[in-house]
Amino acid sequence: MRYVRIKGPRWGVVVDGEVLVLDGSPITGQPKETGDRIPIDHVTFLPPVIPGVFYAVGFNYRGHIEHHNARIPDRPEPGYRANNALTGHLSPIVKPADVTGRFEAEGELVAVVGRTMKRVSRHEAQASVFGWTIGNDVSAREWQHADRTFWRSKNSDTFKPMGPWIETSVDPLEQTTTVRVDGEIRAEFATGDMVFDPFDYLVETSKYLTLHPGDVLWMGADSTVGIEPGSTVDIEISGIGTLSNPVRTERHPR
Amino acid sequence: MRYVRIKGPRWGVVVDGEVLVLDGSPITGQPKETGDRIPIDHVTFLPPVIPGVFYAVGFNYRGHIEHHNARIPDRPEPGYRANNALTGHLSPIVKPADVTGRFEAEGELVAVVGRTMKRVSRHEAQASVFGWTIGNDVSAREWQHADRTFWRSKNSDTFKPMGPWIETSVDPLEQTTTVRVDGEIRAEFATGDMVFDPFDYLVETSKYLTLHPGDVLWMGADSTVGIEPGSTVDIEISGIGTLSNPVRTERHPR
Repeated sequence: MRYVRIKGPRWGVVVDGEVLVLDGSPITGQPKETGDRIPIDHVTFLPPVIPGVFYAVGFNYRGHIEHHNARIPDRPEPGYRANNALTGHLSPIVKPADVTGRFEAEGELVAVVGRTMKRVSRHEAQASVFGWTIGNDVSAREWQHADRTFWRSKNSDTFKPMGPWIETSVDPLEQTTTVRVDGEIRAEFATGDMVFDPFDYLVETSKYLTLHPGDVLWMGADSTVGIEPGSTVDIEISGIGTLSNPVRTERHPR
Repeated sequence: MRYVRIKGPRWGVVVDGEVLVLDGSPITGQPKETGDRIPIDHVTFLPPVIPGVFYAVGFNYRGHIEHHNARIPDRPEPGYRANNALTGHLSPIVKPADVTGRFEAEGELVAVVGRTMKRVSRHEAQASVFGWTIGNDVSAREWQHADRTFWRSKNSDTFKPMGPWIETSVDPLEQTTTVRVDGEIRAEFATGDMVFDPFDYLVETSKYLTLHPGDVLWMGADSTVGIEPGSTVDIEISGIGTLSNPVRTERHPR
């Protein structure tokens, strides 16, 4: 099933080019169809969920780690991103007027938590993921290196596109992630070629932290891709879909 | 006014030792009294708000900065904490069985955002704070230094007590923060003696990030205080109240 969240906010199921609107959230309940149907070309996509906690993995693919001359992590340790930065499929990524240096996209697999988890086994972790979506971890590198935290380098408004929907019937570790800019392939890697997979992360973090339905875990990227205003960046993960966002310049003067 | 959130969850106003129960959130609406009254000794306190984004300031008091041989920040840059770690007034802080080294409390002023803020002036920031509460930024120092992020050192379950309520009628920068362990004063400092005050932070972060009603901003601490299972830690900020939490050992074996 492909669950989508659209302007309203309303939930729906994507079937044959239409959104069948639901009367509640499939993550926290068992909603029924309302009977409303909307052609998918007519909906405004929202981030498929607003998490209670927004977990994000840093170095998790060997290509990315080598590129940064970083050490391969010896255990799974998540970081965090912030909800203000979330935006939906087809919404613009707005590049702040005073960003200088590299401005980059990172295509990431995202696990959406479906059940409360504390001290789970690997099997329980697998059964507790509601489904899978796609994230673009947009990053302003000079800020990332100059600032004390990732507050604006990774969490400025619109820097975290997520969507287009949550796919519940896919083995995400057997897929391919492809990043395109204006239709041209700029990165391609095996989605599952991770140092630690999502279940490793859920087992380890749940030893200390309770994960709740709706929490998300972004899994990191193998490659970074430069993006500029005027272009459109697509992140495709086979079996899930394509998250597409145009890049714009902030209109407000600095 | 003192707004409290209690088990249910329900909101209330604290008046003369009683909670006057409200029919909604005072942060996002204008709730009416339901007529229900509960003696304050009979309620179960919840964190007064579950934020959309949980901002937290690191080095913001000169004593703390000097203690860590850190540089005084030249601009206000927030970090983040995670909602799973929140717990209410009088609920236990649970020390994980495998924590070694220093286990410490930090008493912090907390600003609760009341209005959407983007590119606000200092005056607008002042008008956009709903009220003030108290946080205890419990930290496991060996994990803080050994881990790649603050994921378990500062965000293990129960490591972020917040409460007891939100006080809307106080000048928080004219108060005194006092940290007591089992009734004995272990730290005391001028709450407002900050490198950058809450409004400096809101002005700067809102240049890039939209802040939303219910977001919280923890303002850092001047001193850290060791705590151990069996003791009770109180954070008092004059004019707001006292956040009190017993410390327990985790029962689960590691």
